[in-house]
Amino acid sequence: MLLRMSTLFLRTLREDPADAEVPSHKLLVRAGYIRRVAPGIYSWLPLGKIVLENVARVVREEMDRMGAQEVLFPALLPRDFYEPTGRWTEYGDTLFRLKDRKGSDYLLGPTHEEMFTDMVKGEYSSYKDYPVTLYQIQTKYRDEARPRAGILRGREFVMKDSYSFDLDDDGLKHSYEQHRDAYIRIFDRLGIDYRICFAMSGAMGGSASEEFLAPCPTGEDTFVACHNCGYAANAEAVTTSAPPAVTVEHPALEILDTPNTPTIESLVDHVNEHFGLGITAADTLKNIVVKVRTPGSDKVETLVVGVPGDREVDFKRLEAAVAPGIPEIFEGEDFARHPGLVRGYIGPQVLASLGITYLVDPRVVTGSAWVTGANEPGKHAAHVVAGRDFQPDGTIEAAEIRAGDLCPRCAHPLSIDRGIEIGHIFQLGRKYADAAGLDALGPDGKPIRVTMGSYGVGVSRAVAVVAEQRHDALGLVWPREIAPADVHIVGTGKENQIEVATQLAEELESRGLRVLVDDRPGVSPGVKFKDSELLGLPTVLIIGRGLAQGVVELRDRATGTKEEIPLAEAMDRVLAACRA
Amino acid sequence: MLLRMSTLFLRTLREDPADAEVPSHKLLVRAGYIRRVAPGIYSWLPLGKIVLENVARVVREEMDRMGAQEVLFPALLPRDFYEPTGRWTEYGDTLFRLKDRKGSDYLLGPTHEEMFTDMVKGEYSSYKDYPVTLYQIQTKYRDEARPRAGILRGREFVMKDSYSFDLDDDGLKHSYEQHRDAYIRIFDRLGIDYRICFAMSGAMGGSASEEFLAPCPTGEDTFVACHNCGYAANAEAVTTSAPPAVTVEHPALEILDTPNTPTIESLVDHVNEHFGLGITAADTLKNIVVKVRTPGSDKVETLVVGVPGDREVDFKRLEAAVAPGIPEIFEGEDFARHPGLVRGYIGPQVLASLGITYLVDPRVVTGSAWVTGANEPGKHAAHVVAGRDFQPDGTIEAAEIRAGDLCPRCAHPLSIDRGIEIGHIFQLGRKYADAAGLDALGPDGKPIRVTMGSYGVGVSRAVAVVAEQRHDALGLVWPREIAPADVHIVGTGKENQIEVATQLAEELESRGLRVLVDDRPGVSPGVKFKDSELLGLPTVLIIGRGLAQGVVELRDRATGTKEEIPLAEAMDRVLAACRA
Repeated sequence: MLLRMSTLFLRTLREDPADAEVPSHKLLVRAGYIRRVAPGIYSWLPLGKIVLENVARVVREEMDRMGAQEVLFPALLPRDFYEPTGRWTEYGDTLFRLKDRKGSDYLLGPTHEEMFTDMVKGEYSSYKDYPVTLYQIQTKYRDEARPRAGILRGREFVMKDSYSFDLDDDGLKHSYEQHRDAYIRIFDRLGIDYRICFAMSGAMGGSASEEFLAPCPTGEDTFVACHNCGYAANAEAVTTSAPPAVTVEHPALEILDTPNTPTIESLVDHVNEHFGLGITAADTLKNIVVKVRTPGSDKVETLVVGVPGDREVDFKRLEAAVAPGIPEIFEGEDFARHPGLVRGYIGPQVLASLGITYLVDPRVVTGSAWVTGANEPGKHAAHVVAGRDFQPDGTIEAAEIRAGDLCPRCAHPLSIDRGIEIGHIFQLGRKYADAAGLDALGPDGKPIRVTMGSYGVGVSRAVAVVAEQRHDALGLVWPREIAPADVHIVGTGKENQIEVATQLAEELESRGLRVLVDDRPGVSPGVKFKDSELLGLPTVLIIGRGLAQGVVELRDRATGTKEEIPLAEAMDRVLAACRA
Repeated sequence: MLLRMSTLFLRTLREDPADAEVPSHKLLVRAGYIRRVAPGIYSWLPLGKIVLENVARVVREEMDRMGAQEVLFPALLPRDFYEPTGRWTEYGDTLFRLKDRKGSDYLLGPTHEEMFTDMVKGEYSSYKDYPVTLYQIQTKYRDEARPRAGILRGREFVMKDSYSFDLDDDGLKHSYEQHRDAYIRIFDRLGIDYRICFAMSGAMGGSASEEFLAPCPTGEDTFVACHNCGYAANAEAVTTSAPPAVTVEHPALEILDTPNTPTIESLVDHVNEHFGLGITAADTLKNIVVKVRTPGSDKVETLVVGVPGDREVDFKRLEAAVAPGIPEIFEGEDFARHPGLVRGYIGPQVLASLGITYLVDPRVVTGSAWVTGANEPGKHAAHVVAGRDFQPDGTIEAAEIRAGDLCPRCAHPLSIDRGIEIGHIFQLGRKYADAAGLDALGPDGKPIRVTMGSYGVGVSRAVAVVAEQRHDALGLVWPREIAPADVHIVGTGKENQIEVATQLAEELESRGLRVLVDDRPGVSPGVKFKDSELLGLPTVLIIGRGLAQGVVELRDRATGTKEEIPLAEAMDRVLAACRA
């Protein structure tokens, strides 16, 4: 491949686009890789198209290598497929819906679970057919409320999505591990710095879902990371290390008058001042009541969650912890129906007798003593000891995670970082197989419900993520694997520099390199150098003023090193740099 | 590439799908290349995806070779771009329209003229920037009233569309010729039998628009072809050879009483019976009145078209002939406003005095004599001589074309054939540049309005066209360039045939071939042979019963030849067959 800037459809911009806030957006527009068409909708110019195609090629190679088979679904899909799973409605405003000329309902596919399930159901019937993994690299549509950051969160975007179909949980786990390995290879090859984050705590097993997040100050997602051992997780998936059980003898439970203590802070001040307890908020036990609805039924259970008073309940963590149940707020009328629960003064002492489930933060270990509600208005209780004065029904990961909390793996302090989701692997289980009735006929003639995994890579987003992680003040810094070309040969000067640059470019192309040559006549060296830095190809060869002395300059975009070398060595040196 | 049928996501069908009428649709579904999702909307299974990708690769290679540059536009486009050209409305029901969550209007791109024009306008400004040709291979959407024939006419389909941008007509002609040459290479490589049809008669020059049509009995388009000289054209573009002028002396014009002769047939019978003229319908001159509206204005002109009475006016040919004017039917109230035009008895004799333009079929040459209307109810005139009794204002190609008409190039009889449009090249001119105000700043500082060409290839359709043209009763017959693999190695038998087949497959893959191996255990030879014929790979190697004697069978799918060869020679023979 040889691209000549004299004819290349490329115009770089000196100014950042007015609507751009993050570096990748600014640089990809300025360097002429993408252009905005509408909010979250972009066109790809020639250099951008090459980078996008390179990312897709890497993804395709690694999917093929793991034995996944490529198919292609339409983007325009009839409503029928999305009714049995309820997603026609559930997707809300994020779904682009339209009607055809006959008035039939269609949607633009935001994701293709239903389609893949239906396809496998259409072709396969016997247990002998399985396992199978299918993938596509395809354009998807989501009507994001806030499309932002160029192609980082677009409304039309390219995704690789794949699905594994297995007969049993072990098969699913194997397919999941294969994908995990493939994703590691993909993101390594793309030159992305990433963390594999637990995305779900235990319910389905430790690694039923992981997200590949690229740490990035402009990222929309937050994640919890340990910079000591490499542990990373979504806040929802972080597990809390329980301290050892307490064996100290505590005083007997004592009821305290605590008027006008609506907040934890006022309670702590009050008991320290009036009763000399010397406690902090972390010594109080806050009890939150919620309702947990079973999806698809009217069943609602009351649940009390106990967390140390210095922490809030993180509703997303709570949601993840009670899934598939759906937590809902316990309101005034709910309290009215449960007179045993004294709002503002709930203590766990009475919950067993009320028949209400009580789950506690893992820090509430056996033998630990707390100041908590006394189940009477205006009163709290001190020396309320777990295992003595109340017996929790179990633990729950619902308390907020804070920077400085201890890593569940190595006990070093955790940090909370920002990142961009670039991949997601998920042991989906039988949800879609159930909805579609996807069974394999077993060896005994009985049907086996198929279990699925779901796996995604943001292909167009990956272009932005690389740009976001790999740039400097001057421009983009592409890794070779996805760079629009291996080498940028810049001819500049009034003698025969452009001619020599073009000759070298042609020779290097014939040796198998992908070459971009700046052969523009009448463009100043300054402009050419600036463009070269902005475009960000990994290796740059300058054919400039030194040519008369037989000297050219070899630059490495990433390290910034510049070296004058004899023209006669240029071919070999560029080849060596590009094949390193 | 090595595909193993034991794990390949492929299930062939023994029955034609119920909704399939044409061979390509039946075979592509039966052979497991595509699956229907909705009317005109299909998914691609692994083998189909490979073929589709192969077609795209051929198109891409030839576009790159001619210097076109690849970009990629979104499919989801805001209405704004399609307003200035009026196409938001003009496209009617064929356009998929939708609203986003904010209520803004969007469409699914059926074609991208506006987008390409806008993109060039955004990047380029100087005459030095031109010429440029851009292309994309992209998914398009048209809500066809009658989606049919599988992927032959889909509602979601893949197209290559390209646009050339030049500063003058010579540049446009050059870009057009480059595309024409590229299309010839593309369709030759795809193994498609095609004709290049004139798609427009003279208005913009002889070859301002040509269609590449694949002759096919199931085609939706008709075209006129000369099997002697290779001339081919759309009916709209066929030119009629005028006979030489007539120099015979004719009798004087004679008025005939012709009551009750509402049809040409009754008129001919009447004048032959009562006046002994001995004429046929071809000797009568039929005069059709139309209104021609100037687009974008209220201007309407009355036009009379004279054609020999044995032919109808072909409204599509008339439309093409008066373009950009729009012909409309002359109705009762129009006649009321023109009392000089006696409905049913119009003769050209009075048109000059009425100030009405009169255009005639090229067969109405100077000196030819006709029976035509006498401009009085119930009367016709005989011996009405062109150039003596009336003077046409010019000729017009509006009469229907019939099989047996003479070729305008070599005068052999023409045939009317059916075909499928696979490509279209078109000198668009300045229509879209005018709408967008696309100018280049000239060397003198004055703006130069850019002129464009528009060029399309149906990429997904080409898959169906190849299937339509290349199949037999047993299945598909792919040309090697786009076949899902080069060779199909079929292992069948109860000894070590599958093992040997797999070994050979792996060796051939390591030699660079794309290989499909039928390594399915427990599948009968009959089923494997039938599948092999249905799938249609160009070279087939059977490792069967002869293996014990060291003999295998080499088959050529296209010719049907079968040859027993020694196993030891199999590698070399397959390589030779695949590299021939």
